[in-house]
Amino acid sequence: MPPAAPAYRRLNVEERRSQLLEAALTLFAHRAPEEVSLDDVAEAASVSRPLVYRYFPGGKQQLYEAALRSAAEELQQCFDEPREGPLLPRLARALDRYLGFVDQHDAGFSALLQGGSVVETSRTTAIVDGVRRAAAVHILSHLGVTAPGPRLRMTVRMWITAVEAASLIWLDEDKQPPADELRDWLVEQFAATLSVTARRDPQTAELVRALATDG
Amino acid sequence: MPPAAPAYRRLNVEERRSQLLEAALTLFAHRAPEEVSLDDVAEAASVSRPLVYRYFPGGKQQLYEAALRSAAEELQQCFDEPREGPLLPRLARALDRYLGFVDQHDAGFSALLQGGSVVETSRTTAIVDGVRRAAAVHILSHLGVTAPGPRLRMTVRMWITAVEAASLIWLDEDKQPPADELRDWLVEQFAATLSVTARRDPQTAELVRALATDG
Repeated sequence: MPPAAPAYRRLNVEERRSQLLEAALTLFAHRAPEEVSLDDVAEAASVSRPLVYRYFPGGKQQLYEAALRSAAEELQQCFDEPREGPLLPRLARALDRYLGFVDQHDAGFSALLQGGSVVETSRTTAIVDGVRRAAAVHILSHLGVTAPGPRLRMTVRMWITAVEAASLIWLDEDKQPPADELRDWLVEQFAATLSVTARRDPQTAELVRALATDG
Repeated sequence: MPPAAPAYRRLNVEERRSQLLEAALTLFAHRAPEEVSLDDVAEAASVSRPLVYRYFPGGKQQLYEAALRSAAEELQQCFDEPREGPLLPRLARALDRYLGFVDQHDAGFSALLQGGSVVETSRTTAIVDGVRRAAAVHILSHLGVTAPGPRLRMTVRMWITAVEAASLIWLDEDKQPPADELRDWLVEQFAATLSVTARRDPQTAELVRALATDG
C-alpha cells in the first residue's frame, strides 16, 4: 500500500470542499443516501465532524445536494463532444463516457434516478431534470436542428429516458451486457426510433436521410 | 344540470371511502398533492372534515397513498386484454385505455411519476414501480415468453419507460399529437425496438419472426 498523504497538509477552501464531495460521492455509490452520515463522510475524508459541518452547515441535506450538483456537472461533461465527423459515432463516444460515469457512481446513480429517497426534494429533482434537458439540447444541436418540432423533441426525450432506464437495469443486472455492447445497442435504438418517427414527421425524415449518407 | 344527489343519502363504509378517494383523485388531477388539503377533499365530497379524518386518520399522507393505490389498481386494469388475435392490435387497445387514464388523471399522473413531491416516500415509489413491473409481466406474457432473457427484459422495460416519458411530454404539450396518433406511434416504436434487439438476441429474433406472420 502507498503511504497515506501527510496528515497535516493544508488544503485551501476549494480543495477541501472537493475532497469532502468526492468522499461523499464514493459513499453514496455504495449506500443509500439516508444511510450515509456526516460522521461517515468525516471518517472517509480523515477530517473532523465539525470541519464537515463548517463546509456544509445545512448538514446531510446540503451535503447531498452539493454532491448531486457536482455529479450533475460531471455528467454533463460526458456530453461534450466535438462537432466533427459522422453523428452516430459521436453519440457512441458520449455514451461511452456516460456509461463510465454510471459504472463509477453505481448505487449513487440509482438512488438519484429512482427517487423515493428521504432526501429527495423538488430541488434534487430539478437538478436531475436539468441534466435530462441538457442532454436533449446537446443531441438536437449535434443533429443540427435549431427549431425541433414536437414529434422530434418527443422522440429525443423518449430515447434519453430509455437510456436512463437501461442504465438502471444494467446496474441491477451486474452490468450485463458489457458496456460496449450496451452502447452499440443504444445507438442502434436511437437510429431505429428516429426512423419510426420519420414515417410521420417530415423534419425527422430529413434528418434520417442525412444520417444515412453521413460519414 | 342534473339535480344534486340528496344530501342525506347514507353511504356504506366502502361507498364512502370510494367517494372520498374519487374526490381526492379529481383534486390531484388539477393541483400538486401538497396543494390539496383535507378541507378541500371534504368540500369536494360535501362532507365534514372530521368525517374525512375518520376514514383517513393518518391525514393527507394516508389519503394520498390510498388514492395512489386506487389509481394504480385502475391503471393495471388498462392492461387486461384477452389473449386473442394478433399481438400488436392487443397492445394498441391496452395503450388506448392507458392514454385514456393519463388524459383523465392529468396533473395527478405527472405528479405521481415525476416525484419530487413533498409527499413522495419510498412507499409511493414502490406503488409506481409495482405498476411498471406489472406492465412488463403483462407484455411478456402476451408475447408468450416464459423465460425472458436479459436483453428482451431490458427492451420491454425500456419501452415501458419511454411510454411513460411520452405520456408526461404529451400532457406538457397540451395532449398533442392526438391520442390515436400517439398510440400508433408507440406501437411502431415497440416493434422497431424489438427488431433492433433481435439483431443481437436469438430469443427476440424468434419473437420478431412470429410477430411478422401474426394476424
